[in-house]
Amino acid sequence: MLQDHPIDQLLTLLTSNDDQALISQLEEMAVQDISEAISDAPQENRLRLFELLPAERRTDAFSYFSRPLQRAFIDELDPDEAKRILRELVPDDRTAFLESLDPQDLENFLKLLGPEDLKQSLKLLGYPEESVGRLMTPRFVAVRPDWSVARALDHIRHEAHRGETINFVFVTDHKGQLLDSLRLKSFILARQDAPVSQLMDEEVVHIQANEDREAAVQTIQHYDISTLPVTDRRGVLLGIVTVDDIMDVAEEETTEDFHKLGASRYLNVPIREASPVFMYRKRIGWLLILVGVNLISGISIAYYEHTIESVVALVFFLPLIIDSSGNAGSQSATLMVRALSTGDVAPRDWLRMLSKELTVAILLGLTMALAVAGVGVWRGYPDLMVELAWVVGLAMCAVIIMGSMIGVMLPFLLQRLRMDPATASAPLITSLADIGGILIYFSIANAILQLTP
Amino acid sequence: MLQDHPIDQLLTLLTSNDDQALISQLEEMAVQDISEAISDAPQENRLRLFELLPAERRTDAFSYFSRPLQRAFIDELDPDEAKRILRELVPDDRTAFLESLDPQDLENFLKLLGPEDLKQSLKLLGYPEESVGRLMTPRFVAVRPDWSVARALDHIRHEAHRGETINFVFVTDHKGQLLDSLRLKSFILARQDAPVSQLMDEEVVHIQANEDREAAVQTIQHYDISTLPVTDRRGVLLGIVTVDDIMDVAEEETTEDFHKLGASRYLNVPIREASPVFMYRKRIGWLLILVGVNLISGISIAYYEHTIESVVALVFFLPLIIDSSGNAGSQSATLMVRALSTGDVAPRDWLRMLSKELTVAILLGLTMALAVAGVGVWRGYPDLMVELAWVVGLAMCAVIIMGSMIGVMLPFLLQRLRMDPATASAPLITSLADIGGILIYFSIANAILQLTP
Repeated sequence: MLQDHPIDQLLTLLTSNDDQALISQLEEMAVQDISEAISDAPQENRLRLFELLPAERRTDAFSYFSRPLQRAFIDELDPDEAKRILRELVPDDRTAFLESLDPQDLENFLKLLGPEDLKQSLKLLGYPEESVGRLMTPRFVAVRPDWSVARALDHIRHEAHRGETINFVFVTDHKGQLLDSLRLKSFILARQDAPVSQLMDEEVVHIQANEDREAAVQTIQHYDISTLPVTDRRGVLLGIVTVDDIMDVAEEETTEDFHKLGASRYLNVPIREASPVFMYRKRIGWLLILVGVNLISGISIAYYEHTIESVVALVFFLPLIIDSSGNAGSQSATLMVRALSTGDVAPRDWLRMLSKELTVAILLGLTMALAVAGVGVWRGYPDLMVELAWVVGLAMCAVIIMGSMIGVMLPFLLQRLRMDPATASAPLITSLADIGGILIYFSIANAILQLTP
Repeated sequence: MLQDHPIDQLLTLLTSNDDQALISQLEEMAVQDISEAISDAPQENRLRLFELLPAERRTDAFSYFSRPLQRAFIDELDPDEAKRILRELVPDDRTAFLESLDPQDLENFLKLLGPEDLKQSLKLLGYPEESVGRLMTPRFVAVRPDWSVARALDHIRHEAHRGETINFVFVTDHKGQLLDSLRLKSFILARQDAPVSQLMDEEVVHIQANEDREAAVQTIQHYDISTLPVTDRRGVLLGIVTVDDIMDVAEEETTEDFHKLGASRYLNVPIREASPVFMYRKRIGWLLILVGVNLISGISIAYYEHTIESVVALVFFLPLIIDSSGNAGSQSATLMVRALSTGDVAPRDWLRMLSKELTVAILLGLTMALAVAGVGVWRGYPDLMVELAWVVGLAMCAVIIMGSMIGVMLPFLLQRLRMDPATASAPLITSLADIGGILIYFSIANAILQLTP
C-alpha cells in the first residue's frame, strides 16, 4: 500500500509553525514520500519543507521531483546548495536533469560541476536522446576472472562502502570487455579460494549504449533481470541500467502511446503541473488537422445533397453508419498499436493480422447489419421499408469491414513509414472511416433506391 | 538488445532433422528465448523442441509460455511429465497457471500435487482474484533480530542453496511479524558478531495480501524497490512479490486500459493466439451498445429534418462539428484515464481538472471556431454567408467545450461508480458528444437562421 497517511500528516503539520514536529515527521518518512509531499504542498511551503531536511536527504528528495519542479527548485535555492545537489546527484539522475534544460541553462549548470563529473556528464549527454546511454549509470562493480572469490569479495565490499549497487557483479577482461554478470549470491556461496572464472556461465544479456531505450525496456522485461549491463560496440562495459529506471521509462513510453492514441501530442510533464496554454498547444494541432479530414466528409455529403433531398430519412441513419465504422476501426487500431508496442505482434505479422481481422470484421459486420436493418424496418417510411432495411444493412456491413481494415493496417503502415503507430488515433481513424462511410452509404442508397446523386 | 538471432537460428534448424544441432543450439539459449522460439514454432514442432530440453529446463521454459499455450502443452504431454512440471513450478507461477483453468480442470490438476504443494496452492488460490496474494511466492528468507550476523549468513547460505531469492532478507519476530527488510549487502558489510538488530532501520514498505495487485505495482514503482514483502492484517510475513512479476502485471493492466479505451473488452490472451470468434465476442458488445447511443443521434437529427430541408447546406458542416466535439472529448478522456491510472491525478482532483480543462476548452473552441467560420464563409451560400459563418463558429466553440467537459468528467464519474475509468472510450465519448453536438448545432442554426424545427 502507498503510505499516504504520512504525506497527509505532513501537509497538515505545515499549517502550524512547529518546525520541530515537521522535522520529526520527515525523519520517519521514506524519501519518495517526502518528495511527493513537497510536490503536493502549496508552493510557498515547498522550499521550507525542503530546507528542513538533512543535507544528504535533500539530494535524494530532489532526484524524485518531476523535471519542472527540479528546475523551479534549483533556481530558488541558494547557489551553493544548488551546486552541492548537482554534484551529489548520481550520474543517471544528473543526466536526466541536465537533458531537460535548454542549451543556455545547460551551459551554466555544467560550469558548476567538478572536472570529473563534467567529463562524465558530457559523455553521457553525448549519447542520442532516448538512447540507453542517457539512462545508464557508469557506476558498477567489476572483477577479473582470474581473481579468487575472496579477493573479489574484498573488492565488492570496498565498492559497496562507496555506495555502489552490488546485487550484480560484472566480470571483465583486461580491456574492460564484458565476460559475464554474476549475482552477489554466487560469491557468498562459493569456496573462497576458487577463481571467479569457476562461477561463470558466460550467459550474459547486454545492450549497446546507442540503442533505443525501448529496447532496454523490452530486454529487461523479456529476461526478467534487474540490472542490464551496457556496452559499446566492441563489448566494453560502460555502465548499467537498473529495473527501476526501466519501469519509469516504460511508464513514460506507454503514456506517450496513450496521449497519441487520444490524438494529443505527448504531454511530457505531469498533467497536474501542465499549464492550460501548454495543454492547448499539445492538443490544437490534431484538432485542426482533423478539421481538414472532416471537410472532405462534408464535401462528400454535399456531393449527395440531391440524394438527401430526395430521401431525408437517410440522414437519420448517417451518424449510426459512419460512427459504427469508426468504432470498429478504433477497436482494431487500438488492439494493433498495443500489440505492436508490447512486441506481441511484429511488423512482419501484418498479413496474418489483416486476414484474421477480415474474418472478425465480416462477423461484426453481419451482426451489426442485422441489428441496424431491424431499425431500418422500424424507422422506415411505409413505402420504403424493405429498401431502407437493405440499404442500411448492406451499408453497415460494408463500412464495418472498411473501418476495421483501416484500423488494422494504419498502425503497420505508420511503422513502415518510421512514424509512431500510435498516431493511428481513434479520432483519426474515425475521421477517415467517415469519408469512406459516407461514400459507401450513399452509393448503396442510390443504387437500391434508384436515385441519382 | 533482444537476442532474437538464436531464435531464428533455432527455427531454421527445425526444418532439418538434425536433433543434435538443435540440442546444442538450445544449450546456448536463454530459457526466455527458448520459450519464445517454441511459441513461434509451427504447432507440429513445438512438442519436439520441448522434449529436446533437459528436464530441469522444461519446467522453466513452461513457466514463460502464455496461459493458452501452457494449457495446450499440459494436455499433450505424457501425464507423468505434466505432473512433474506442475510439481516443480515455483508457487507463484503455479498459481498463475491454476487460476487460468476452469473449475473441472482445476480439480483434476490439484489432484496431481503432493500434500504440501496442494495446501499451499489452495491457500494462494484462496486470495481474491487480481489480489496481491495471487501474485506472491511464499518463499523468502527470514532471520531474527537477536541472531548474530554470522548466524544469519549461515542461514541465508543454507536457504540460497535451496534456490531462494536472497537479495532481500527479512527480519521477523517470534510470531512471524515483519520487522524489517535488509539487503544482502548489509550482511556482508557488517561485523560478523554484531546482532542483526544493529543493521535494522525499521523502514519497511509492505503490502497486505488482500489488496489489489495494482496497489503492489504502484508501491514498487513509487519506492523503487525490487522485492515487496506481503503480510496479513496483523503484519505476519506471508510471502514476497518481485519486480519482474510486477512488470508483467503492469503490462497486463495497461493493455487492459488500452483495449477498453478502444471500446473492446479486455483480450486477456495475446492477440496472435486469439481466435477470430474470441475477438468477435470481445468487440461486438460495445459496437451494439454504441448503436443504441447513435440511434439517439439519429432521432435528434430526425427532429431537425425540417431545418435540414430548409438549408441542406447545414448537413455539410455536420460531420465537422460533431466529430470535432468527439475529438476534443477523446483527447481529454484519454489524458484523464491515463493520469488516473498512473496516479498522477487522484479522484479528489476532479474539480481542479475540470476547471483547468474549461480554460483549455475555451482556447481550443475559439481557435476551432475561427478555423471553421472561415470555411463557413467559403462554403456558404452567397445570401447566407455571414449567418452560416456565425452558426458554424458558435456551434463549434460550444461543442468543443461540451465534448471536453464530457471527456474530463466521465472517467472521474465512472471511478466514483466503481467502474473502470477506461470505459470512457473514444468511441463512447464520440457517440455522446454527437448527440449533444447535433442538438447544439441545430438549435443555434434555428436561432440564427430563424427557422423552426
